Amino acid sequence: MSTVSEKPIIIVAGVGNGSGTGAGTARVFANAGYRVALVARNEEHLKNTAAQINGAGGEASAFPVPAYDSASLSSVFASISTKWPGAPLRAALWNAGYGVWKPFLSVTDEELDASLNANVRAPFIFSRLAITAFKKNDLNEHGKRGVLLFTGATASTRGNTTTSAFSVGKFGLRSLSQSLNKEFGKENIHVAHAIIDGVIITDRVKQAYGKSEEWAANADVRLDPESIGKAYLYLANQDRSAWTWELDLRPAHEKW
Amino acid sequence: MSTVSEKPIIIVAGVGNGSGTGAGTARVFANAGYRVALVARNEEHLKNTAAQINGAGGEASAFPVPAYDSASLSSVFASISTKWPGAPLRAALWNAGYGVWKPFLSVTDEELDASLNANVRAPFIFSRLAITAFKKNDLNEHGKRGVLLFTGATASTRGNTTTSAFSVGKFGLRSLSQSLNKEFGKENIHVAHAIIDGVIITDRVKQAYGKSEEWAANADVRLDPESIGKAYLYLANQDRSAWTWELDLRPAHEKW
Amino acid sequence: MSTVSEKPIIIVAGVGNGSGTGAGTARVFANAGYRVALVARNEEHLKNTAAQINGAGGEASAFPVPAYDSASLSSVFASISTKWPGAPLRAALWNAGYGVWKPFLSVTDEELDASLNANVRAPFIFSRLAITAFKKNDLNEHGKRGVLLFTGATASTRGNTTTSAFSVGKFGLRSLSQSLNKEFGKENIHVAHAIIDGVIITDRVKQAYGKSEEWAANADVRLDPESIGKAYLYLANQDRSAWTWELDLRPAHEKW
Amino acid sequence: MSTVSEKPIIIVAGVGNGSGTGAGTARVFANAGYRVALVARNEEHLKNTAAQINGAGGEASAFPVPAYDSASLSSVFASISTKWPGAPLRAALWNAGYGVWKPFLSVTDEELDASLNANVRAPFIFSRLAITAFKKNDLNEHGKRGVLLFTGATASTRGNTTTSAFSVGKFGLRSLSQSLNKEFGKENIHVAHAIIDGVIITDRVKQAYGKSEEWAANADVRLDPESIGKAYLYLANQDRSAWTWELDLRPAHEKW
Repeated sequence: MSTVSEKPIIIVAGVGNGSGTGAGTARVFANAGYRVALVARNEEHLKNTAAQINGAGGEASAFPVPAYDSASLSSVFASISTKWPGAPLRAALWNAGYGVWKPFLSVTDEELDASLNANVRAPFIFSRLAITAFKKNDLNEHGKRGVLLFTGATASTRGNTTTSAFSVGKFGLRSLSQSLNKEFGKENIHVAHAIIDGVIITDRVKQAYGKSEEWAANADVRLDPESIGKAYLYLANQDRSAWTWELDLRPAHEKW
Repeated sequence: MSTVSEKPIIIVAGVGNGSGTGAGTARVFANAGYRVALVARNEEHLKNTAAQINGAGGEASAFPVPAYDSASLSSVFASISTKWPGAPLRAALWNAGYGVWKPFLSVTDEELDASLNANVRAPFIFSRLAITAFKKNDLNEHGKRGVLLFTGATASTRGNTTTSAFSVGKFGLRSLSQSLNKEFGKENIHVAHAIIDGVIITDRVKQAYGKSEEWAANADVRLDPESIGKAYLYLANQDRSAWTWELDLRPAHEKW
Repeated sequence: MSTVSEKPIIIVAGVGNGSGTGAGTARVFANAGYRVALVARNEEHLKNTAAQINGAGGEASAFPVPAYDSASLSSVFASISTKWPGAPLRAALWNAGYGVWKPFLSVTDEELDASLNANVRAPFIFSRLAITAFKKNDLNEHGKRGVLLFTGATASTRGNTTTSAFSVGKFGLRSLSQSLNKEFGKENIHVAHAIIDGVIITDRVKQAYGKSEEWAANADVRLDPESIGKAYLYLANQDRSAWTWELDLRPAHEKW
Repeated sequence: MSTVSEKPIIIVAGVGNGSGTGAGTARVFANAGYRVALVARNEEHLKNTAAQINGAGGEASAFPVPAYDSASLSSVFASISTKWPGAPLRAALWNAGYGVWKPFLSVTDEELDASLNANVRAPFIFSRLAITAFKKNDLNEHGKRGVLLFTGATASTRGNTTTSAFSVGKFGLRSLSQSLNKEFGKENIHVAHAIIDGVIITDRVKQAYGKSEEWAANADVRLDPESIGKAYLYLANQDRSAWTWELDLRPAHEKW
């Protein structure tokens, strides 16, 4: 079986406003020589993130979706093939999510559905598309056809008093990643899950929690999106003799 | 706060054809003095199970539902109040499920939805109704307002090669039970989860797996539904000073 | 294979001053018809506990040991056979422990050894003696030759900032219980582990933590030794078709 | 606080005959610019491994020990300071172990003690020495004073039928790594644990299991020591905003 060295593609679903894990990972993989397909619902943010990566010498393209559903995600995978014909999809990150932290009795059916859609149903469809694409690839220099990555959270392994709706989604996503790791490892498709056990420094967090500039500047207390991106790149580069299903990531001073 | 000793009600959702865990639990709680509200989709099976319990000196009533959705479940809880006015709902078991064991790429969106509905969405609604009912109760002799029980499986903690759709539901259900345990313990509502890690002897299993009578007769190798029911009764009777969120149940000779 | 109904023996190692889990379990099993062999290092406390059980209509005997080592434990098992010739040992609880909560760099080698001895080495020897005794038994009415029980703690599954020495012992003990459950289940010897995740009301705790009478009287916030004992009795009585390796126990209002 | 770029030292305890994880890690860190202090009991093997690294342009030195005890380990740390005065110890790997896979009733007290010594007592002492050394360091370019690494195994999280003695040690070691991670993270000392969940290709394994050359050549089915070493190097290089306590490593085709 031959190996390829052609410039590979990563698809990153869940890019937000460009200040979080999805965009950080996109920048890290762009620097490592990947073409980056950016997927999110806000077209303006998405184009800004693509422009920023392209301006820094990378190669990125925006694929906005109206919603994370089967039709939209299928359309994105088809558009990627059109955009970069012949280039192999080698990596896929599901980073979209929907968080709801509320007392159980005030969670609406719609909020539960939103959590299940973003954390289970959509990544299920996304995984199907990514794995189907990976199966067409030869083995790369790491002995892989592709790597499928999932962003987890503290709530992936611990339910808590306000996480009834969020945690069912995150437990479900973790389970999906484990089932897929076991099913597709023997086809040299690597599936991994990262538990982000702390607060990530993003624009949204800085505003929502009223975090100070001092906090934002203190690398010991919050996660940097690019550091998470480097963890994903490390996972992508692990060779087939010793690869990881799951790792946790948290700041040095995090109490856990 | 006073305590009550009035004959309490248990609602059991997921009774199947009367040979499995739901019916076994119903019989055990009926023997222990509970009125039993039986919920399932097959009206005939449900009535047979109720008749069998009533014939044995218990008190059971069948509440068939067209589907496990919000309207049907709400209607059942209302009907129970009408059936036994003034009697306190003290226990609720979510035992309904939907299992699908298939290679990931052949799982349909409908099968995933069926798993999510039976294992997450419907128990979410069921829990809301049960907890709302429990909150009206005084403390009983065990220091509880009520006990909410969930039936888990091996797939609740382990994804595997053919469990992508089943396991997301079961991980999700386990997560729900943990979140609810933590949120409602302080209101003396006890939420518990049993991991059934082996094959339960039911009519369906005997047929589906072509199990022999010898196997069925060997208590060391398969779970007895009434033994599971006794575990649920034990959980219901634990006092508030020392109660359990989770326990596992398997036959003596099970390899695990 | 015949079953026996002869009055069985439980050995309880780790009885302390008679106010904790070991003594509570002894009382519960005595009430359930077991002869109780009490093992601890303080002879006076041990005799008081035995006297209290005998005075309440139970049957208990004190077996003080100078230390939890191989010679002493072997001697106790021999003495039990002499005390109650022909009576079957049917249950054994390892409840002795040694807790040390200190910053890592101030833990001495002696403290680590004490933790390893009480939580791993001694229960290893105790298990060997108990299992060897159980193997001689016929199956009882629950389909068991015997039940071997271990008391765990929060530190059994979570290391923390001051638990380096304590937690290695408790993780080790939990591991032992799992290995033994898997190895001896097929011989109908039941091995189980209870994670006590909260503060138990004992004389020591009341003094050491300066807990108020109000706290002690509030069943929602601390574990009652007899409630733990009832959990052990339930485990002992589980039939072979559905038995438990592990359960957690905590007060209703515990934050976890 | 200044950062240093001076050539750092890694100490690797448990080098075996130079074909396994310890030596593989030593080679990887030597290539990355670390001085390597090699610790094991067999002086000849140790010197061969050091010579091999030095011959390849690295810088390694052998520190044989008669046993993994407090005096010997203290002496090694002192000798390292003498060997490379002023150079900072930045990384430490505990890779020594003692495996015993036997039916429980045939495990001797000596075998249990050997497992506890290699997997708990000695790494406890080793950690004390390493952390004490790390505390003297400034932060490096990754925001760390040092990284302390532990090699785990499948038995770190699963007891099984023949692992009673081995698994108590490995559970204990995992617990130690978690307690230390939580205690020393706030001092920017990074503690991590790798679960090696598969067979590592070593001389011993090739002989002991009669593995074929075909097996040894198939990167999909066994772990390569240098791939494990790369995982440790990645952990050492994680920055303080997002670091890992635990990851698992297994071959692509491993059934788990």
